[in-house]
Amino acid sequence: MKILAFESSALSASVALTEGEKIIAQSFQNCGLTHSRTLLPMAESLLQNSGVCLESVDAFAVAHGPGSFTGVRIGVATVKGLALGADKPCIGVSTLEAMAWGARALGGGICCVMDARAGQVYNALFAVQDGAPHRLCDDRAVKLIDLGKEIGSEPYFLVGDGAELCYNTLKESCSGLRLAPLELRWQTGYGVAAAALPRLIAGQACSPQMLDTFYLRRPQAERERMNRLSENKETAG
Amino acid sequence: MKILAFESSALSASVALTEGEKIIAQSFQNCGLTHSRTLLPMAESLLQNSGVCLESVDAFAVAHGPGSFTGVRIGVATVKGLALGADKPCIGVSTLEAMAWGARALGGGICCVMDARAGQVYNALFAVQDGAPHRLCDDRAVKLIDLGKEIGSEPYFLVGDGAELCYNTLKESCSGLRLAPLELRWQTGYGVAAAALPRLIAGQACSPQMLDTFYLRRPQAERERMNRLSENKETAG
Repeated sequence: MKILAFESSALSASVALTEGEKIIAQSFQNCGLTHSRTLLPMAESLLQNSGVCLESVDAFAVAHGPGSFTGVRIGVATVKGLALGADKPCIGVSTLEAMAWGARALGGGICCVMDARAGQVYNALFAVQDGAPHRLCDDRAVKLIDLGKEIGSEPYFLVGDGAELCYNTLKESCSGLRLAPLELRWQTGYGVAAAALPRLIAGQACSPQMLDTFYLRRPQAERERMNRLSENKETAG
Repeated sequence: MKILAFESSALSASVALTEGEKIIAQSFQNCGLTHSRTLLPMAESLLQNSGVCLESVDAFAVAHGPGSFTGVRIGVATVKGLALGADKPCIGVSTLEAMAWGARALGGGICCVMDARAGQVYNALFAVQDGAPHRLCDDRAVKLIDLGKEIGSEPYFLVGDGAELCYNTLKESCSGLRLAPLELRWQTGYGVAAAALPRLIAGQACSPQMLDTFYLRRPQAERERMNRLSENKETAG
């Protein structure tokens, strides 16, 4: 089964074409350009250079969040459009779970962290068993200090764009934390495809219309608006 | 320092652009198309989509062998051409060493094997220490049975297109052998760039004119010709 998978939830962007567990082609970029510019051209080049057409893809997968509001929106919109056009099913997977699949070669405990600003990270913990990451908690927005208390001295590899922040903040109190090597630290399309494969096999794909983003917090603009409104209320009160 | 690195020594083809240890962009294909068709378009798309021009690349790196005669030739010729045109230095690295760098996240012992046909593999053994693979032997063409005797029960991850062949042949006698996960088993441009970086820093880059292929055996056509010539001699004798 061929999966075309998209990752654009943080700074890097990546597209992968897989057949079962094998990577047929993958592109990855971490060059600071906006995903609205990079993602579709990457997919187009990848398919063209591999001689594969959209029609022969069995399903489209995407990291549906948590992550950057705009990045996630671009990824999900791209996949909705492609899947509608090609009349194929979709699979949305947790960005954090996809990261754990991408780094599964590290084995043991994997702590996925994305910088959510304001002292928080988007996080989930996984344990790799028999080559597959098993979830130890739900995706969540958590304060670094609380994450540190939970982890204690347990051994975990840190992956994601919040890895360095987390390591620098917690390395004294959490002696088992280690940074994943740079080549496995960033999100990839492969991770998304690997996380999507068991769902596709289990018949859990959805229609392009049903595919949606998954945010752990409201977007910054909404949060700021709510803050302003509550401040105004207090001033008025 | 920016390195544009090429890998086309076996079935897969890959191009990576790195800045120090960070991957700026990478493309990978394992779709059975000939490298003469895939390699330059991949590099072109990668640079175009990343908004990076050839002039801003500091050095060009390539896996110069061992490997497929034609694949290695295409990679080296591509890098020679690009480096000459852009007036930049080159670095040729061992295909097997680049594979070990690409799989360094696995840690421990890494056994790089490429299928060299006729019961032989191109092989080198590495031990990862402090995140860098250290060479335990020279690159060599070796019989699988002799490699098995040498490895014994030592723990090694198998990477490369000969990994499965090696595992299936030796798993009974070599209890420490394990197949690397598929996403780290194939050669990548990143591995080439990572192997090239210490050489670039040490001032070991060369001119495009000096860059050459590195074969462990004569090409098949030459070997067949020599066999024919010696058979003719015997018949004539």
